Amino acid sequence: MNVNYSNNNTEESACKVTDTICLPDSDLPRVVIIGGGFAGLALTEKLKHKEIQVILIDKNNFHQFQPLLYQVATSALEPDSIVFPFRKQFNGYKNVVFRLAEVEEIQASSNIIVTDKGTVEYDYLVLATGTTTNFFGVENVEQNSLGMKDIRDSLNIRHLMLQNLEQAAITCDDDERDALTNFVIVGGGPAGVEMAGALAEFCKYILPKDYPEYPSSIMKIYLIEAIDELLSTMSEKASTKTLKYLKDLDVKVLFNESVSDYDGSIVTTKSGKTIFAKNLIWTAGVKGQFPKGIDEKHVVKGNRIRTGSFLMVEGYENIFAIGDIAAIITNETPKGHPQVAQTAIQQGKYLGNSLLKIINDEAVKPFEYKDKGSLATVGKRKAVADLGKFKFAGYFAWLLWSIVHLMSISGFRNRLMVGFNWAVSYFTYEKSNRLIIRNFKPKSSVNNPKK
Amino acid sequence: MNVNYSNNNTEESACKVTDTICLPDSDLPRVVIIGGGFAGLALTEKLKHKEIQVILIDKNNFHQFQPLLYQVATSALEPDSIVFPFRKQFNGYKNVVFRLAEVEEIQASSNIIVTDKGTVEYDYLVLATGTTTNFFGVENVEQNSLGMKDIRDSLNIRHLMLQNLEQAAITCDDDERDALTNFVIVGGGPAGVEMAGALAEFCKYILPKDYPEYPSSIMKIYLIEAIDELLSTMSEKASTKTLKYLKDLDVKVLFNESVSDYDGSIVTTKSGKTIFAKNLIWTAGVKGQFPKGIDEKHVVKGNRIRTGSFLMVEGYENIFAIGDIAAIITNETPKGHPQVAQTAIQQGKYLGNSLLKIINDEAVKPFEYKDKGSLATVGKRKAVADLGKFKFAGYFAWLLWSIVHLMSISGFRNRLMVGFNWAVSYFTYEKSNRLIIRNFKPKSSVNNPKK
Repeated sequence: MNVNYSNNNTEESACKVTDTICLPDSDLPRVVIIGGGFAGLALTEKLKHKEIQVILIDKNNFHQFQPLLYQVATSALEPDSIVFPFRKQFNGYKNVVFRLAEVEEIQASSNIIVTDKGTVEYDYLVLATGTTTNFFGVENVEQNSLGMKDIRDSLNIRHLMLQNLEQAAITCDDDERDALTNFVIVGGGPAGVEMAGALAEFCKYILPKDYPEYPSSIMKIYLIEAIDELLSTMSEKASTKTLKYLKDLDVKVLFNESVSDYDGSIVTTKSGKTIFAKNLIWTAGVKGQFPKGIDEKHVVKGNRIRTGSFLMVEGYENIFAIGDIAAIITNETPKGHPQVAQTAIQQGKYLGNSLLKIINDEAVKPFEYKDKGSLATVGKRKAVADLGKFKFAGYFAWLLWSIVHLMSISGFRNRLMVGFNWAVSYFTYEKSNRLIIRNFKPKSSVNNPKK
Repeated sequence: MNVNYSNNNTEESACKVTDTICLPDSDLPRVVIIGGGFAGLALTEKLKHKEIQVILIDKNNFHQFQPLLYQVATSALEPDSIVFPFRKQFNGYKNVVFRLAEVEEIQASSNIIVTDKGTVEYDYLVLATGTTTNFFGVENVEQNSLGMKDIRDSLNIRHLMLQNLEQAAITCDDDERDALTNFVIVGGGPAGVEMAGALAEFCKYILPKDYPEYPSSIMKIYLIEAIDELLSTMSEKASTKTLKYLKDLDVKVLFNESVSDYDGSIVTTKSGKTIFAKNLIWTAGVKGQFPKGIDEKHVVKGNRIRTGSFLMVEGYENIFAIGDIAAIITNETPKGHPQVAQTAIQQGKYLGNSLLKIINDEAVKPFEYKDKGSLATVGKRKAVADLGKFKFAGYFAWLLWSIVHLMSISGFRNRLMVGFNWAVSYFTYEKSNRLIIRNFKPKSSVNNPKK
């Protein structure tokens, strides 16, 4: 048992940002990786058991499998099935250290990063900080709608949705009930399409059982897309099939539309339409996020960091960027590479190999992207696939989508969980428990509890 | 799509407490049950498919299996395994209606309850609102420690524990690391004993793998009990065996001790000892919780409601209390019945049967409690059991404990989940994912982020 001594003493020492974060002593070159998404994790895996000290810093203690966030949002999966703790991942990696902290600033001149928990020195720094939701400056939308970029977003969507469905059972006001049960999804990319499909499934199979109070027709789902096609990065076949699948599920798709205003109850579109909905999910855009300290002149469109084809940030000797925030801008890739998992994973693996060479003063080849194709699913047993010249849709595409995603999830237990849940819902149309564990309100309503 | 109309209109109509909560029309007598714990759920099950309209009101949309809260707190189980949504439970119960609301007041004179979402009329009212943590007025302890009475408490404990373990890896201050990795559990009843055992297991099997930074000896677990034995409601054999099991797991048990002060870092005991710990879990007492409106003179020790042996609240014709808040005080039960699940379930079933009789003007028998015995587990493969004159401990008791609890959980899926997780951890000592999904701070530290 401890002897009694001053408490201030510890209060003093409790994480002042001037402190240095405690790390194991090592004479090895130190690579500090900020962010454990697909890119950061792939890089760490490449560097494990090597003559390098690897420090992974993330604001979460887990890796997230973002492609399935929409299934957590719609209660198809529980969060613990698609997130995996770094420390479990790194069991037995003697040269890898995880620290839970949020990086606030890069001091490149002195090779130091400043976090909310203290400072860390680096020999090589890798930014793998990914993207966040981009509301394109529409303040009201940002205040009243929900993005879907991490596990907390998914849980917020789930909780808001379930709370609104409960409130719809309580209210005697038809208009309010209508607003509470209408869903608007903005953005016709994979996230928006998959979210719309999953919501439509929920409406079709869960709502009638859980809410006998009202017909499933009461829940309306709108998908708003700024241009005239869905999944614009995929083939025309994929986008037309996707539209058909969504229509079969009664999703109302609005093309060439965008949201000009939203007050938490009424969505106003550019063309002047209004949709009455208390559920607005925003998947229309992302922007890079990274700590301050990187010279502005290297930041390009979408708040991404311009790198050379070796993924080194221009103007720095020992700072690299990988994944969604990295933009290798060449004639072949004027917009950089697509901001998807496979780019991130390939860049993580590439940098792992080239860092080992760089540290040993060996020559490195530039990064080359291999497009392995795209998959997107629309509700149960339907998906679209573009694999090189093979473009197909339907049940087989869905089966492929399921296998690819199941195999990509970290951790045997998670695969088992996801597989189990999918199997149950495949045969029974039953989904996992629908729990409101935290009461969620959009940002705005903190000051306006009525909303 | 909705036509455009005033937003204020809905804002106005959004849940004013003067509104009535929307309910299906019915000529049947209406029984309103407040609280869907063991008692409320057992009552609802008895009344399903009967000529009665049953309204269950709960502030959560799920039933909680409280006996396993400590396993969620220690990352052995995920929350969705031990909570079960009411609407799923009530699928196909045509006469049962669930409403998510928090009851604020009972207006007995007019047979109305007032909730945060609106009012509800009743013919018969049943209070099954259970208990909450009792800090016995020690303000500092209440501000800085964590209770363990519902699923949010468990998640708070889990998140605080994991955050503190991460901070322990970050700090270079030995004293702070010590405080961050020390755990104090107050209360030697089943909850405290099972929590201490589970923490000790975590320390023994998870910590060394996840936190190679430091030896498992760094995590110290203290159990503080006010009298001179553990599990005082069970047999002497049970309490001595439990003590042995905990000592085998290196839990430091302090008898005849209580906590006089806690500032979030230093626990001060009545006898003047100090323990340096940032993790204090309080299981030392409970008190009844129920909405205002019940005549004070019927409220007895532990904030329970005195009822006759028919569980009718004294002084009222159509208000009943069941479960932890009900106290039938007679010569045989001067303190009322034990506040445990089996009492709640028996009272729920009893009241279901007698309400049917009361509504049909038939005579009812008084409630009779059948003690089915007690079980408590201490870490893996060890438990104590008092079944009538059969008192035993060890592996078989643990097996019995596992089976009894597995069978008592609502929902096939939940049983499968819990069974699966237990099986995995039985063979591998591996537990489920350890995720910090929400950043938790004790109440006090909201104003003092350093704590």
